[in-house]
Amino acid sequence: MRDVAIIGVGETEFGELWDRSFRDLGIEAGLKAIQDAKLRSEDIDAVYIGNMSAGKFIDQEHVSALVADYAGLADMHLPTVRVEGGGACGAIALLQGRLAIASGMHDIVVVGGAEKMTDVGEVQWETVFGATFAGLYAMMARRHMYEYGTTREQMAAVAVKNHKNGALNPEAQFQKEITIDTVLQAPWVAEPLGLFDCAPLSDGAAAVVLCEMQKARKFTDTPIRIAGSGQASDFLALHDRRDLTMMDATVVAGKRAFQEARLEPKDIQVAEVHDNFTISEILAIEDLRFVEKGKGGPATADGLTALNGKISVNTSGGLKARGQPVGATGVAQAVEIVRQLRGQGGKRQVVGARRGLTHTLGGTGATAVVHIFERGD
Amino acid sequence: MRDVAIIGVGETEFGELWDRSFRDLGIEAGLKAIQDAKLRSEDIDAVYIGNMSAGKFIDQEHVSALVADYAGLADMHLPTVRVEGGGACGAIALLQGRLAIASGMHDIVVVGGAEKMTDVGEVQWETVFGATFAGLYAMMARRHMYEYGTTREQMAAVAVKNHKNGALNPEAQFQKEITIDTVLQAPWVAEPLGLFDCAPLSDGAAAVVLCEMQKARKFTDTPIRIAGSGQASDFLALHDRRDLTMMDATVVAGKRAFQEARLEPKDIQVAEVHDNFTISEILAIEDLRFVEKGKGGPATADGLTALNGKISVNTSGGLKARGQPVGATGVAQAVEIVRQLRGQGGKRQVVGARRGLTHTLGGTGATAVVHIFERGD
Repeated sequence: MRDVAIIGVGETEFGELWDRSFRDLGIEAGLKAIQDAKLRSEDIDAVYIGNMSAGKFIDQEHVSALVADYAGLADMHLPTVRVEGGGACGAIALLQGRLAIASGMHDIVVVGGAEKMTDVGEVQWETVFGATFAGLYAMMARRHMYEYGTTREQMAAVAVKNHKNGALNPEAQFQKEITIDTVLQAPWVAEPLGLFDCAPLSDGAAAVVLCEMQKARKFTDTPIRIAGSGQASDFLALHDRRDLTMMDATVVAGKRAFQEARLEPKDIQVAEVHDNFTISEILAIEDLRFVEKGKGGPATADGLTALNGKISVNTSGGLKARGQPVGATGVAQAVEIVRQLRGQGGKRQVVGARRGLTHTLGGTGATAVVHIFERGD
Repeated sequence: MRDVAIIGVGETEFGELWDRSFRDLGIEAGLKAIQDAKLRSEDIDAVYIGNMSAGKFIDQEHVSALVADYAGLADMHLPTVRVEGGGACGAIALLQGRLAIASGMHDIVVVGGAEKMTDVGEVQWETVFGATFAGLYAMMARRHMYEYGTTREQMAAVAVKNHKNGALNPEAQFQKEITIDTVLQAPWVAEPLGLFDCAPLSDGAAAVVLCEMQKARKFTDTPIRIAGSGQASDFLALHDRRDLTMMDATVVAGKRAFQEARLEPKDIQVAEVHDNFTISEILAIEDLRFVEKGKGGPATADGLTALNGKISVNTSGGLKARGQPVGATGVAQAVEIVRQLRGQGGKRQVVGARRGLTHTLGGTGATAVVHIFERGD
């Protein structure tokens, strides 16, 4: 496979952007990424867009061609592809864009993710019986508390940490620090998860420019190489899975990515993981083997995943504080890792970051995607 | 790029399948393709699904993981990807599956297309002003009649031919021949297009198994090689395009595919083109350069595109008679071409077919995908 690097990144603010359309968001992020890469539009070979529910939310399918059209690219007749995989859309789009370049078909691909917003449970089974998305994650939290002694305070520590990081990110939806008490005293959404254990629903978009590695060096001195990618699926319904305290899709996707990159969890300094609920981050850092199984709660409470801790997790603020425009998530995570590896993390810069990881979930873990990035200089 | 071949095909019947769910259809097609390839499920590396509107039609996104789960593949944790591009979903999924193998990431990929059903116009502009999908195609037909003297009888000849072919296809939704008068006397849908100028909306699914070429020879003596693929986009709204009588996306996608395959239109014996309306097939055979611009109507009326004519077009019955489950279309077209190139066309076999082509549209031509196939023996 040919090596692929990220040479440009861009994003919109995330939040309740009532005055901005889906296409405006997608175009803003894409143009920022193209400018950041110092590309001319003629250099682009293809456009990939991660989006979950434009058909349902804005009554428009075929959004990849829509965004290319309104971005002024229609007369280039580029191949445009929308990719969907629940909350993992953006991360899968990034993988498909990488494969298109790795194959030799294209040299330069723009990958975007965008959403005007609700996430998905498994309609054909679970939601029929009244399970909500938060309710399903609450069951995972309950079981983790039972098996490993994880506490509400430890879960709250995830939210507190991510809000603290978000306060250092000018693009984040929530730039305000909170306390453990804020989380514990919030109204229930699905016990034991309160309002502050849940990420918001957001509008927003993010984009990256991918480029074949040799060519990438012509555009930038700090190409960020995609060193490994892993994607895995699992049973959609929780009742079919072997263990509620572990997401097999994350475990498998992580193994695949680390194997391709020939790296170990200890080689990673900064990671953006899918914290749609506080319990999700605890599961993620365990399943990715950053910490031992069952130790995710204590590790968070002890600051091991804080900014410049043993491993810095969700420096952007994560889905929790940065915001959660579903289709954009996986791409926005990559944008943050690129910023960190380039040394452009500003007040939230991880000192000496050379390798980063993104972890993105679809549904309640029926899909997981892991990408590993490293400085290519 | 590594060479990729199709080694297995499968499809469901197409039609109004009220008693069959989306997932049942997708699984039936996929399992048939796997059996046709004589694969074990352990041989599969990834699953790609083309689907347009599951979110809107059946209130379920994340359908690639859903289908893999219900097919009994969940515990293999395969990467599963849903691809969307309006009516071209299936064809784009096929291209992404091809790239995944060409890159070296995977060796064997199952590509499916499925839909429980309406197609998409451009909501952000055209449908606001009351344009329907058929109305937009009617404008293209009107202009083609004005510019080139195309007649309603010539458009009707497309429907008559495709129903005749469909009558020879046991999987087709309509297996009944019709006459020019049937078409001309049908009620208007959008003048000058009557009911029989329009393809139906259907339920159905289709699947193919893709395999790296060297490995493919272990599974079959007649691997069907994907010799070239081209995808292109265009303005979504007709009012932005330079010419209503020509789809630039088809022209560009066709050129790209022929260039990669190092072939010319005259090298193709059998083609499945996107005849969602009769005028669409006329545009397609012109834009793909099977006939001169403006001559698509007379060529059809004269039988040049009939079974075993100069080039056999839509031997399956096309979208018109075989049916139009949107997400399945591009994959079902590939299934038909594989059958023809293997010599398994039954009563509709094209004599001496060695090379075939599929052409699939998204929207009113904002996306077009062309694949060229050839016998690999």
